[in-house]
Amino acid sequence: MNAEIVSIGTEILLGEIVDTNAAYIAERLPALGIDVYYKHAVGDNLTRLAEVIGRARERADVVITTGGLGPTEDDLTREAIALVHDEETAVDPDLETWLRDLYKRRGNVMPERNIKQTWLIPSARAINNPRGTAPGWWVERDGKIVIAMPGPPSEMNRMWEEEVAPELAKRSTGTVLIKRTLKTAGLGESNVDEMISHLLKGNNPSIGLYARADGVHVRMGAKAPTAEEARALIEPVEAQIREILRPHVWGADDDTFESVVGETLAQRGLTLAAMESCTGGLLADTITNVPGSSRYFRGGIVSYATEVKEMMGVDRAIIAAHGVVSAETAAAMAAAVRARLQADIGVGITGVAGPEPQDGVPVGQVYIAIDGGEKVASQALAFQFNQSRTAIKRRAVTQAIMLLRRALVAE
Amino acid sequence: MNAEIVSIGTEILLGEIVDTNAAYIAERLPALGIDVYYKHAVGDNLTRLAEVIGRARERADVVITTGGLGPTEDDLTREAIALVHDEETAVDPDLETWLRDLYKRRGNVMPERNIKQTWLIPSARAINNPRGTAPGWWVERDGKIVIAMPGPPSEMNRMWEEEVAPELAKRSTGTVLIKRTLKTAGLGESNVDEMISHLLKGNNPSIGLYARADGVHVRMGAKAPTAEEARALIEPVEAQIREILRPHVWGADDDTFESVVGETLAQRGLTLAAMESCTGGLLADTITNVPGSSRYFRGGIVSYATEVKEMMGVDRAIIAAHGVVSAETAAAMAAAVRARLQADIGVGITGVAGPEPQDGVPVGQVYIAIDGGEKVASQALAFQFNQSRTAIKRRAVTQAIMLLRRALVAE
Repeated sequence: MNAEIVSIGTEILLGEIVDTNAAYIAERLPALGIDVYYKHAVGDNLTRLAEVIGRARERADVVITTGGLGPTEDDLTREAIALVHDEETAVDPDLETWLRDLYKRRGNVMPERNIKQTWLIPSARAINNPRGTAPGWWVERDGKIVIAMPGPPSEMNRMWEEEVAPELAKRSTGTVLIKRTLKTAGLGESNVDEMISHLLKGNNPSIGLYARADGVHVRMGAKAPTAEEARALIEPVEAQIREILRPHVWGADDDTFESVVGETLAQRGLTLAAMESCTGGLLADTITNVPGSSRYFRGGIVSYATEVKEMMGVDRAIIAAHGVVSAETAAAMAAAVRARLQADIGVGITGVAGPEPQDGVPVGQVYIAIDGGEKVASQALAFQFNQSRTAIKRRAVTQAIMLLRRALVAE
Repeated sequence: MNAEIVSIGTEILLGEIVDTNAAYIAERLPALGIDVYYKHAVGDNLTRLAEVIGRARERADVVITTGGLGPTEDDLTREAIALVHDEETAVDPDLETWLRDLYKRRGNVMPERNIKQTWLIPSARAINNPRGTAPGWWVERDGKIVIAMPGPPSEMNRMWEEEVAPELAKRSTGTVLIKRTLKTAGLGESNVDEMISHLLKGNNPSIGLYARADGVHVRMGAKAPTAEEARALIEPVEAQIREILRPHVWGADDDTFESVVGETLAQRGLTLAAMESCTGGLLADTITNVPGSSRYFRGGIVSYATEVKEMMGVDRAIIAAHGVVSAETAAAMAAAVRARLQADIGVGITGVAGPEPQDGVPVGQVYIAIDGGEKVASQALAFQFNQSRTAIKRRAVTQAIMLLRRALVAE
């Protein structure tokens, strides 16, 4: 079985918003035994939409679209699919009742424009969408399937997981592809290549190496009639790779540095607090993106104004002697927040995110300190990131979490 | 003149690496007077590559590809373009000399497999690439242009700017597209649609509506021989739209809530501080993404643990009486951080980001409070966001900044 993905919307076509939907779906189809051959993006134009959906339907077993299911005149996915199938759209009474009730429950009256969100064609059934006003369409005729999902990722993701993927899994007869990624740190791509070169020659699982911001990833992919059989092919190879790369493997699949560090903190009953200035809260934000982070994250202080650092316990004399952007101030921030928020480990970040230099310190200069008290080793390091404001913030936070991980692993 | 963009590579097709090239090119074509009708992504497969390039060449004046120009067996762009034109590839002696010299200058011998990077077909000329080993191809025949550029963005961007865009500009009709976006808040997409429906029918400027996290965007695009003429077409329509939507228009083009709120704070000499728990620092991070935010942002406290709220001045009795996730606690947080960090305005956010409910409060329940002292009105509001953890954080921050904006505008 093979599929094509069509992302709909002029803003996606023109690169004005990032299309995360197509990648989301493309990543998930192989595990259902469905090959992806093409992705397309097309604007809000009926003729071109029908052209691309029609061509895709000629070539592929399944065509999956996202976007263009809103209530406006620019939302033309329904019309295009009707045109491709040479069928007429009509209001579906059940959908109309559902949508009018939805508005009523929200204390509103459905604007008449939204009536097109209750349309179907004879070959279409509606796909449930509890997160929005646009039901999806599942159109099946002549052995071909066309699936239309809404563009907002929160609506699309739920619809995919709950409604579309299970239905596709039933119909797919193909061989399932299961992937497994091991994440390493501290080795270059060619080191890893040399260390596991004898395993790289196999083709089921096939193995690929990918250099990423958080280290070299080793990706295994196995094909088999069922997911269990595919996993059974991966297991012994994964065990061999782990054996060879042991001290360098820090996680797998969806693990991130922050999730792995968090798990280590939780297991060891250690708590963490952060005082950050140039990263402006991004470190705390990143740490708290991990579910369950309240087990180990006490809190943070965003000491944007210099007086706030002093109010929060950083010695004015240290700032005066070394400057607000210095290793000494970063260390004092780590110590102060550790004491103030009664945590086992404190992290301090101070630097210049730009766009202007500050007190003679160039843009991108960042100091990161860890105060581990008696629990982990303390340290302060200097970095220079030659990037944009938001990229400097992001890089500094990644480095801070990597430092934390190394501090936790080291002792 | 119109164009299609083809991104080549299995990793891009499967969403394993993000395709920034297609968006880069798509954003730049309208200003050259070239319309983009489709973007496609296809894997490293000769038949499918030739199919998608061939179809695109039938429909469009210009086909622009990126990727697949490397030296390996998987790099099939040259072969596919040759197939589409029914021409034979052959080593170009000048390119061969250039590439062998390039390797020699780097102290290496050219691996023989790289010889395919010196191929051309009779209708192709090479496009200079000083940043890599893959020249581009400019293929012109039968009134159609096919342009192949390498995948690495640093090579592609330079080739686009220096070689491709100037050449395309010469051939294009010279009609440029200029865009202008008005950003509104407090209206639904279908409300805006109804209010300005008489203007939506025009096609120069054409007008599109886009529902975004920060409200509905109204985007105008005008075509004219020069940028000045295009702007002159937009101006009266923009004036009409502003007149109709007046109290709801909060910004234009690159304005964000945080930049507009920040500008207002700076102009009025007001300062801001935030205490946030469920958003975990994302509010401070968002505010400090704006360059110059140190003029008005004093700092923030991420009071993740309940004791941290108390340490930072939130009355334990309020938390005990109303719960840590309550309007009263949010208001106490706003007041405490305003006092503690000596700011004019304090913001407090408390809620449950999930995945688990907390003390009987459901996931997605968030309270946001503003304490404006005597400067702006104080308020506390309840929200319920039915989304994922990170989306709840994002929505809560957007709402907090919208509240701030309204508080600043209201009085």
